Amino acid sequence: MSVAIIGGTGDEGFGLAVRLGRAGEHVVIGSRSDERGRAAAEKASGIAGASAKIEGASNETAAAGSDLVLVTVPFAGQAEIYRSIKDALRPGAVVCDATSPLASAVGRSAWQVLTPWEGSAAEQAKAILSPTARLVSGFHTISAEALHEYERPMAGDVLLCGADADAKAAVGVLVDKIPDLRWVDAGALSMARIIERLTALMIGVNRVYGIREAGVRMLGRDAWGRPPAKE
Amino acid sequence: MSVAIIGGTGDEGFGLAVRLGRAGEHVVIGSRSDERGRAAAEKASGIAGASAKIEGASNETAAAGSDLVLVTVPFAGQAEIYRSIKDALRPGAVVCDATSPLASAVGRSAWQVLTPWEGSAAEQAKAILSPTARLVSGFHTISAEALHEYERPMAGDVLLCGADADAKAAVGVLVDKIPDLRWVDAGALSMARIIERLTALMIGVNRVYGIREAGVRMLGRDAWGRPPAKE
Repeated sequence: MSVAIIGGTGDEGFGLAVRLGRAGEHVVIGSRSDERGRAAAEKASGIAGASAKIEGASNETAAAGSDLVLVTVPFAGQAEIYRSIKDALRPGAVVCDATSPLASAVGRSAWQVLTPWEGSAAEQAKAILSPTARLVSGFHTISAEALHEYERPMAGDVLLCGADADAKAAVGVLVDKIPDLRWVDAGALSMARIIERLTALMIGVNRVYGIREAGVRMLGRDAWGRPPAKE
Repeated sequence: MSVAIIGGTGDEGFGLAVRLGRAGEHVVIGSRSDERGRAAAEKASGIAGASAKIEGASNETAAAGSDLVLVTVPFAGQAEIYRSIKDALRPGAVVCDATSPLASAVGRSAWQVLTPWEGSAAEQAKAILSPTARLVSGFHTISAEALHEYERPMAGDVLLCGADADAKAAVGVLVDKIPDLRWVDAGALSMARIIERLTALMIGVNRVYGIREAGVRMLGRDAWGRPPAKE
């Protein structure tokens, strides 16, 4: 089974492609153009090592070929990208949206945010896809800068939210393949209204301290991942 | 110099009163009624120990007597409280707002939030106070439950935001007195639009995992506190 990374030529998506490729996942980098997808895949393979299986394709082809689709695109283009892959997605595919509605989409600062009509970028994605789409929101607190330091383990937690517990766990399996990331189930998809904004908070803290890799770690449990079954 | 805790009879304020009293701060617990303020102070003193100096008063008297005023009240009553202390505040006093605009204020869930007209509860407070008020926003990620386990050091970070760097540092001095809390300068007061919502995120994570003390820690620097001067 392959993982599609829509917008995999961008910083976050490319970093995830290399990290997941190196972890043994079959990755397909999607891009608006087939050639750019293939060029990015070649570059990512070069970094990830000879055993990594990373291919490139158009976003539509990448989406059509996978049961697990990560969407890592800037907010300004998010709606258009979802409209473009909507019909290509397999029934039952898990779609993980990593979009943060940063105000840089409209020429303001990246430590400020917009409020999408549906409340969050993830809910905007859900509104564009079919109502049965298995949408998860996540990866907003993971620094692209840190992802690109490929020899260093990552730090920090990926907060996942969405209605479908199995879909969250499927994305969580990917998170667990990237040392030393952990995943936390943060509840319903609407929690993305809070979690997506953390990207802007990290960017703001980076700016205040003149650093580049602010991140966030949850306290309160030694291990997170799939929550215990409710009694 | 004393620290006033407006709404110090509530869970968060009471916990902070005990912790700060034990750390040697002169604390004045404010309440809507003089008597309830004094009763809470007596109880807090009993927990904090004989050497702690914790008094009780009305909110107005507490606010008038201090250069550092923490406001720890539920969102439903926040505006009224600020109107009631506005004229009592000393010129130049630092006011730290700890309000989270949880939807429980209007009969919805505490893991959901409202959007105040000014963008955040802290900015709502600022709009009520004089334009020269030295307002800081903070303490949203600190669990009242954990605060009340008085023999245990705290974990996690207090994110402070506001326009006045010295005001943030003054609140930071208090944070540093509570073992093992740290404080992070998260930028302008409008960042409260993100940070206040973290209370709801913590409550949501608590609910998902059946725990009570979810918290958050910033990654990216070994030490936080006052940021380095810009070049």
